[in-house]
Amino acid sequence: MKFGIAVFPSKKLQDLANSYRKRYDPHYSLIPPHLTLKNPFEASEEEINEIAQKLSETAKKTRPFTLRAYKISSFQPVNNVIYFKVDATPELLQLHEELHTEDLGGKPEYAFVPHITIAQKLSNDEHSDVYGSLRMAGVDHEETVDRFHLLYQLENGSWTVYETYRLGGAEV
Amino acid sequence: MKFGIAVFPSKKLQDLANSYRKRYDPHYSLIPPHLTLKNPFEASEEEINEIAQKLSETAKKTRPFTLRAYKISSFQPVNNVIYFKVDATPELLQLHEELHTEDLGGKPEYAFVPHITIAQKLSNDEHSDVYGSLRMAGVDHEETVDRFHLLYQLENGSWTVYETYRLGGAEV
Repeated sequence: MKFGIAVFPSKKLQDLANSYRKRYDPHYSLIPPHLTLKNPFEASEEEINEIAQKLSETAKKTRPFTLRAYKISSFQPVNNVIYFKVDATPELLQLHEELHTEDLGGKPEYAFVPHITIAQKLSNDEHSDVYGSLRMAGVDHEETVDRFHLLYQLENGSWTVYETYRLGGAEV
Repeated sequence: MKFGIAVFPSKKLQDLANSYRKRYDPHYSLIPPHLTLKNPFEASEEEINEIAQKLSETAKKTRPFTLRAYKISSFQPVNNVIYFKVDATPELLQLHEELHTEDLGGKPEYAFVPHITIAQKLSNDEHSDVYGSLRMAGVDHEETVDRFHLLYQLENGSWTVYETYRLGGAEV
């Protein structure tokens, strides 16, 4: 099974992201707006129990942190993905690192650029039009993140939450 | 904000449900296949903190239980909803009751018929065709449920998981 780890931001930021995704992101109906903490990885049901255990420990020692989305940016020319750029705070980088230790599969292939995708799979022309107008619209939002989610992918490509991890001190 | 409480069954049962929902359920892209434990209700952010606390206590005192989907049924003539009928075990009825105590809004409007919807909003003719063939296909599936989810609805009608509750003894 394919798993991934992500933060769902507040309803407010999700609604804003969806107002763009609806038109510009073919993944709109597969997963709510999210900040990916760990890219999709394969794990068996036994492996995921061990991983879930580790995630629980990681969450307990991580403090809630501030998520600040402060501008609209693009990964072009690497790919035509437009996103809310999220402040790479020490807390967020630390959490990302904790989710890429050796026993969780090791270092990621690419450097971590915290972001919430709002448009993807656009043609070059579309990208340039859409990015031009979204960049002007911008984004300026701040909130506290106190949880992250482990998800798995269904056959149709959509994602279901397997478990939620409250960050340390936020446990009810 | 609008919240709801549901169980997501295993990937296997979700994939099966989605193979039908894809064609017959307009909510296909709004939420993964699920068994509703508590219908959508309104709550403020403060209220939901209290509710989350109560759900945590309820989960702790509930044991993991067996979910058995044993036939395909319909709510007609009440409405044209076709679903996997789920065994109303004492454990499931008890959990449903715990989620409808006075401090969680009280008794539900309708009797609890545990089910996983696979088709809805069909015309009478469609319903009769689809139900005829699905009823023959049937379903026979059993699994253990060890968690439920509190979700909230976004402006576009889709649902995001707010928190997962592991049932007692299943805590990692």
